[in-house]
Amino acid sequence: MPRLLGRASDAMRPVSFTVDVSKHAEGSCLVKFGDTHVLCTASVEEQVPSFLRGSKRGWVTAEYGMLPRATTTRTDREAAAGKQSGRTQEIQRLVGRALRAVTRLDGFGERAVKVDCDVLQADGGTRTASISGGYVALYLAFEHLKAIGVVKEIPLRTAVAAVSCGIVKGVPCLDLDYDEDSKAEVDANFVVTGDGKLVEVQGAAEGAPFERAQLDRMLDLALKGCAELVLAQRAALKLA
Amino acid sequence: MPRLLGRASDAMRPVSFTVDVSKHAEGSCLVKFGDTHVLCTASVEEQVPSFLRGSKRGWVTAEYGMLPRATTTRTDREAAAGKQSGRTQEIQRLVGRALRAVTRLDGFGERAVKVDCDVLQADGGTRTASISGGYVALYLAFEHLKAIGVVKEIPLRTAVAAVSCGIVKGVPCLDLDYDEDSKAEVDANFVVTGDGKLVEVQGAAEGAPFERAQLDRMLDLALKGCAELVLAQRAALKLA
Amino acid sequence: MPRLLGRASDAMRPVSFTVDVSKHAEGSCLVKFGDTHVLCTASVEEQVPSFLRGSKRGWVTAEYGMLPRATTTRTDREAAAGKQSGRTQEIQRLVGRALRAVTRLDGFGERAVKVDCDVLQADGGTRTASISGGYVALYLAFEHLKAIGVVKEIPLRTAVAAVSCGIVKGVPCLDLDYDEDSKAEVDANFVVTGDGKLVEVQGAAEGAPFERAQLDRMLDLALKGCAELVLAQRAALKLA
Amino acid sequence: MPRLLGRASDAMRPVSFTVDVSKHAEGSCLVKFGDTHVLCTASVEEQVPSFLRGSKRGWVTAEYGMLPRATTTRTDREAAAGKQSGRTQEIQRLVGRALRAVTRLDGFGERAVKVDCDVLQADGGTRTASISGGYVALYLAFEHLKAIGVVKEIPLRTAVAAVSCGIVKGVPCLDLDYDEDSKAEVDANFVVTGDGKLVEVQGAAEGAPFERAQLDRMLDLALKGCAELVLAQRAALKLA
Amino acid sequence: MPRLLGRASDAMRPVSFTVDVSKHAEGSCLVKFGDTHVLCTASVEEQVPSFLRGSKRGWVTAEYGMLPRATTTRTDREAAAGKQSGRTQEIQRLVGRALRAVTRLDGFGERAVKVDCDVLQADGGTRTASISGGYVALYLAFEHLKAIGVVKEIPLRTAVAAVSCGIVKGVPCLDLDYDEDSKAEVDANFVVTGDGKLVEVQGAAEGAPFERAQLDRMLDLALKGCAELVLAQRAALKLA
Amino acid sequence: MPRLLGRASDAMRPVSFTVDVSKHAEGSCLVKFGDTHVLCTASVEEQVPSFLRGSKRGWVTAEYGMLPRATTTRTDREAAAGKQSGRTQEIQRLVGRALRAVTRLDGFGERAVKVDCDVLQADGGTRTASISGGYVALYLAFEHLKAIGVVKEIPLRTAVAAVSCGIVKGVPCLDLDYDEDSKAEVDANFVVTGDGKLVEVQGAAEGAPFERAQLDRMLDLALKGCAELVLAQRAALKLA
Repeated sequence: MPRLLGRASDAMRPVSFTVDVSKHAEGSCLVKFGDTHVLCTASVEEQVPSFLRGSKRGWVTAEYGMLPRATTTRTDREAAAGKQSGRTQEIQRLVGRALRAVTRLDGFGERAVKVDCDVLQADGGTRTASISGGYVALYLAFEHLKAIGVVKEIPLRTAVAAVSCGIVKGVPCLDLDYDEDSKAEVDANFVVTGDGKLVEVQGAAEGAPFERAQLDRMLDLALKGCAELVLAQRAALKLA
Repeated sequence: MPRLLGRASDAMRPVSFTVDVSKHAEGSCLVKFGDTHVLCTASVEEQVPSFLRGSKRGWVTAEYGMLPRATTTRTDREAAAGKQSGRTQEIQRLVGRALRAVTRLDGFGERAVKVDCDVLQADGGTRTASISGGYVALYLAFEHLKAIGVVKEIPLRTAVAAVSCGIVKGVPCLDLDYDEDSKAEVDANFVVTGDGKLVEVQGAAEGAPFERAQLDRMLDLALKGCAELVLAQRAALKLA
Repeated sequence: MPRLLGRASDAMRPVSFTVDVSKHAEGSCLVKFGDTHVLCTASVEEQVPSFLRGSKRGWVTAEYGMLPRATTTRTDREAAAGKQSGRTQEIQRLVGRALRAVTRLDGFGERAVKVDCDVLQADGGTRTASISGGYVALYLAFEHLKAIGVVKEIPLRTAVAAVSCGIVKGVPCLDLDYDEDSKAEVDANFVVTGDGKLVEVQGAAEGAPFERAQLDRMLDLALKGCAELVLAQRAALKLA
Repeated sequence: MPRLLGRASDAMRPVSFTVDVSKHAEGSCLVKFGDTHVLCTASVEEQVPSFLRGSKRGWVTAEYGMLPRATTTRTDREAAAGKQSGRTQEIQRLVGRALRAVTRLDGFGERAVKVDCDVLQADGGTRTASISGGYVALYLAFEHLKAIGVVKEIPLRTAVAAVSCGIVKGVPCLDLDYDEDSKAEVDANFVVTGDGKLVEVQGAAEGAPFERAQLDRMLDLALKGCAELVLAQRAALKLA
Repeated sequence: MPRLLGRASDAMRPVSFTVDVSKHAEGSCLVKFGDTHVLCTASVEEQVPSFLRGSKRGWVTAEYGMLPRATTTRTDREAAAGKQSGRTQEIQRLVGRALRAVTRLDGFGERAVKVDCDVLQADGGTRTASISGGYVALYLAFEHLKAIGVVKEIPLRTAVAAVSCGIVKGVPCLDLDYDEDSKAEVDANFVVTGDGKLVEVQGAAEGAPFERAQLDRMLDLALKGCAELVLAQRAALKLA
Repeated sequence: MPRLLGRASDAMRPVSFTVDVSKHAEGSCLVKFGDTHVLCTASVEEQVPSFLRGSKRGWVTAEYGMLPRATTTRTDREAAAGKQSGRTQEIQRLVGRALRAVTRLDGFGERAVKVDCDVLQADGGTRTASISGGYVALYLAFEHLKAIGVVKEIPLRTAVAAVSCGIVKGVPCLDLDYDEDSKAEVDANFVVTGDGKLVEVQGAAEGAPFERAQLDRMLDLALKGCAELVLAQRAALKLA
């Protein structure tokens, strides 16, 4: 099965991180994984959730949304429906955990950073793009706090990025687009740090159950893809 | 009181309409009034609300949303709060009425067009930008229906645009930005057709009540501003 | 087109303000614009919203409701539906703004007055009756505060009243009833102070867009109607 | 303990039923038990709930609401809170059961009658006034259906009325007002038919548990009170 | 009409109270009235509702729920529906009142006890089983507070139990199962203390209104049934 | 770090599946993983979701809930809060996917089976117990459909079970209890079929990111644990 535009099974779609796209946010990044576009903003608030008051620790959370016509056919607005779907909640919990995994929560005082990931256009992999772009927005917000003297060092231990993999017609593939995703036998998401360690692994059979060896092969691909993403993040952040 | 960047009291901010920004929507437009950026998409659905079934008439509605960090400080997500604010509902009802006022509802069969206006960045005038950009997205969706042979003519009688005016420190001004808006003594929004007629007039005292003559002066400004917006819409739509 | 009961196009329906209709409320008024009946109560609370704490300023808000069978056919109860409609929220925001526009918010301490406008029977013009009757209830509540020594003077700069106008079969008419309203080409609401200044102007095309001259003519009618309403308010309040 | 205005322990407060108070409803009644005023409307709908479709039977339900300032201090609007309280639901279920108990549900076709009981002013006994006034509104709606030829006979087997009783400082009392109710050791509500049978009995200890003999004595009072209410209902309905 | 398994009209179904069924709760009891099984837990919280802060008094409330397949056919989960039904709220208010009626609220400091009654399997009488089992859980929670030295005496004046009665085919019966309940002409619930006094009486005609004598007969049965329940409670609690 | 009761790092807690615990459900199972107790019922409904109408395919979904005092300290009831938490939705989606992965959806007509998993007592691993017990309830429901002649064969391809693993103080451990779970550096859940294939893998760093080798070691443990669970399921179902 040839991939779109002759992409190899172990190749990412074209990836870009455009920084500072918001006039207001402390950090912001428009991330593109092919036709999947996510606007990520990081907002610093001078207050932590009640369970952290007095702890001298900060907190990082994420929220996720999708514009109604980000999708092929229009999806009803969650604000109109009166609640966030289970899928939305699952994704924003995942993004939050991923970002907290690389953040030194004792390194920026009793502050909360809220990372909003809003999908402007969807073509598969919105959650992995959100994590990868959310990290860039978060970094920029901390850089801002450093620039104004609130923190001395950026309280991030390493980078974090995420990518999806899948088995499509028997072939393990990296970074599925929507069309591939809807045909995949197995669908997996991997969250990986800048030094190649695992933060989260989620693999699910869409049809028949899968073999341990298939998980291993997808993990190989994911580590390769995340390494590339981390390089692109660093370039966007102008880190040496 | 000098305006930002030496803008005259009867001048619009820089305005742009960028068309076809969405891979999926039948019509789409990114509209900018200065630093106010609204992504407008028009989605065609093959079904009308129940009160129109069997009527051979179509319907046009609008929905409005704001990304959490479109604003100076972060605003809570309406989907998380579980309901749309009164302000949101007021705006989306206004946008819908404005678009229906220029649409021949008997001219595109029993179809519904949903125009989504999502504010990516806010700096005053989000509702007037939504109407002005929403019209462009709606036009493009009808153009698409014409291209695929669903309609013979574009069922729009004329264009529609909208602009805000205000009295700031005693001076009637066109197209207020957020800073001006928050200082204005009177705040008004005008929805005007391509042939200079009125669709909607909304003026409100923010502080002291105002004089009839002030309303007249703001109306002068609005007609001028909307005429300019209609020219820009036509240019974006490549109409002669 | 003759109006019901031979009413002239510039004539109000029979209007009455009956004061002190509630045993419990600090101020109350049953207002009738023809067959539109609204029960208005003003409740004083010894607490302001959080954004005003410590400001030495008070606040005035309004809430609006309609009994299920106030209308020709029964309308579902908003409490059962679990939320207030966009229309309800739009009206109660309008009533609140109108009342605050004539209130000296620094003149009655850190207190909130909540004006409830509940439509017992509807026949067009419920929002304008709510503003006009809500003002009377608010005045009475402040009179009560003065009587018990809480304020020295009634913190109202002037009166406020509101009326609807419309273009019905080409004729500008004052104070539309439900039947006229449903046929009107243009529908407008005007909020006017006791000294003839404008607080809010809202005009909307129901069908074809309208001319500036039509707005002018409706404004003439509205100023006449509101002047009459203010006289009736003063009589009900036994002001010289 | 003397009652207000020298009322005897077995005396009702002044009771009135004013019929046809709504321009729109098929049946309506403003009922007063002293300072408790409830507006009752009966609305006929040409559709039954789904569980009765095809059954040739009709249905009667009730809804209950209280204006925010019906009470001594203002109560938040249930529509704003987004849900009806447990108390509201309990009362409207009670009113519905009481009305259905005397209605021949097979006597008016597949129609639903919704009886809305809205408390304009509360001073104890709002649920018993609602049942008593709701019956009058329901009767009038059926009379309307008879007048227009939809039913041949009024499908009500007998009247229904309700009254509260209580033990106040050891004395069994009929028809408690709010002040008595808040001091009562036992509080009970009785729903009784026109021929003196029981539809519903609800008695609850507010403080110490009570004796069977006390329940008996309250039942004596309730039967007396309901007999008087049924006479007043008949007079209001101009029945011989 | 013979009852199931030859049960006499004045006989309870087999009743059991199994204590300490929860590893976590301060007090717990699995109560069975025949095939009706309710898991009751009592949770002590070191905080009272705001209206009691500073009063040196405690509070007892109850919540009620039913597993989706506790019933003959599956019932939708209230958490998924987004609200508790009127029936649920009515029952949990009843259980709370019943437990508070025998509790010395000034006898355990500013603490709240929440008694959760969750129906694992339903066959009629779930509210009366909840009260009877809830009392046992509450007693055990107080016993726990005594054991750890928080209170010196168990702050309960007497026991409380509840049972349903009904008139089935003209015969007054004690403790109806679901099948009997659905056929009953009259349905009543009685809440009775350990010393035979009444806490709450609720009787309702399901079909034709009923006679006073029938209420009396049901009361006889209820007092007998509750006396038996109180003995079973004492046995389960190992009280002499 | 010794485990409770001397449990080996690769040992499950005592596991039991008690079948047919519900009088009403088509299939039911009380599953215990140590002190974690989950009541699972499978309810057959003669209707599929709208997206499957006319497809001749059935559907299997799961819902998950927790009794308020299943946990160490009481958790608020989701029905009272008015919505299901993100965690609840995430779990019930997982359980549904796991059960569908082994079900032949074309093998039981247009029917839906709803598997309710209600946690009576929680001590870690409630989602894995729910999947494992939910499978048994589902099997029994299908057995019931076979017994009454609705299906010829049980439409399940193989069994499915699930278990959690974690790295606790550096040691990979099988089937964590609550205390271990709260200390674990890595927490993972594995859903495995009766023939040892993977349905879902979810691993997350709770603190520091983890190594690929650790994921491998946890997978070894999970395959061992699930094989034991499948044996216990077969024994409970009396399969050879």
